[in-house]
Amino acid sequence: MSKTVPVGVSARHIHLTQEHIEALFGEGYQLTEFKPLSQPGQFAANETVAVIGSKGQFDKVRILGPARKASQVEISRTDSFAIGVKAPVRESGNIEGTPGVKVKGPKGEIELEQGVIVAARHIHFHTSDAEKWGIADQQMLKVRVGGDRGVVFENVIARVSDSFALDMHIDTDEGNAAGVNTGDNAEIIE
Amino acid sequence: MSKTVPVGVSARHIHLTQEHIEALFGEGYQLTEFKPLSQPGQFAANETVAVIGSKGQFDKVRILGPARKASQVEISRTDSFAIGVKAPVRESGNIEGTPGVKVKGPKGEIELEQGVIVAARHIHFHTSDAEKWGIADQQMLKVRVGGDRGVVFENVIARVSDSFALDMHIDTDEGNAAGVNTGDNAEIIE
Repeated sequence: MSKTVPVGVSARHIHLTQEHIEALFGEGYQLTEFKPLSQPGQFAANETVAVIGSKGQFDKVRILGPARKASQVEISRTDSFAIGVKAPVRESGNIEGTPGVKVKGPKGEIELEQGVIVAARHIHFHTSDAEKWGIADQQMLKVRVGGDRGVVFENVIARVSDSFALDMHIDTDEGNAAGVNTGDNAEIIE
Repeated sequence: MSKTVPVGVSARHIHLTQEHIEALFGEGYQLTEFKPLSQPGQFAANETVAVIGSKGQFDKVRILGPARKASQVEISRTDSFAIGVKAPVRESGNIEGTPGVKVKGPKGEIELEQGVIVAARHIHFHTSDAEKWGIADQQMLKVRVGGDRGVVFENVIARVSDSFALDMHIDTDEGNAAGVNTGDNAEIIE
């Protein structure tokens, strides 16, 4: 049985706590939705911030909502060299011991003490997809993507939940290395 | 028999004709060597130029010498989005129909009519390496690189010559997607 999964290529982005949103945009500020993301309830916000490292900065980094319990910046390894922040490859939420960065909004700036990561590639499975294909939460998969520039990604983390929609998340380095765009298909091969 | 190859991660760079070198740096100008490259006779020059696209520019793009018969700009797919030049994946030297770009040096600027590519990943084999491993010129290989972020690159082009030294060339997107650096090893698996 062919195990085909849509690909989403994530550009650099930031998740913020409500406290940090207010520090950057003003007291009581609420994010506004630009467009929904593939995972139910998640959205790209209209709001952007500047992310400032020791060697450079990105001026318009998209905030993804809703507000989270911990702020987190997700950049590519290419980005990490460009701004001079040595972000490790981590699963989302696992930010202990990761580097911080300065973040600037229209009404203020904050110094994150930690939270800059290169997101580990992963696939979101709804529980029903995972059961159908015999895949367990946190299982490591091999996944093929792309055409002439095709690559097989090893160690793709399976994340299974009733609140997830089937989608493979890779970053821009991974998408560009494979020559794929959001909406292309991936094939789980092992 | 294990087929291990050193990896070289190529950052964006440019090859220029002697005519273009003189248009950018002045009449009679000769490139000067900054450091040798893995392929015999090839070198990174001290000289850099600006490469200017419709959406952005790179200010210090390294020239690789010696002068060539045709000028060629090699960028990553990430770079191509950043400066707004739709560079196709091509083998070095195969630039027919590729987009051009503006190039600026200290003494002048030129408008390349074509020559901007995303270099197709490839391995240089000395003829003796290729014979030992039974690999033919232009053969397509599958090659594994990386640790936790490991990937298998498909369609890696074998290039065989008595004038080559064994080395796998990938670009920064590919190196970063796999979490590898110049000097790491790759394994030919098929």
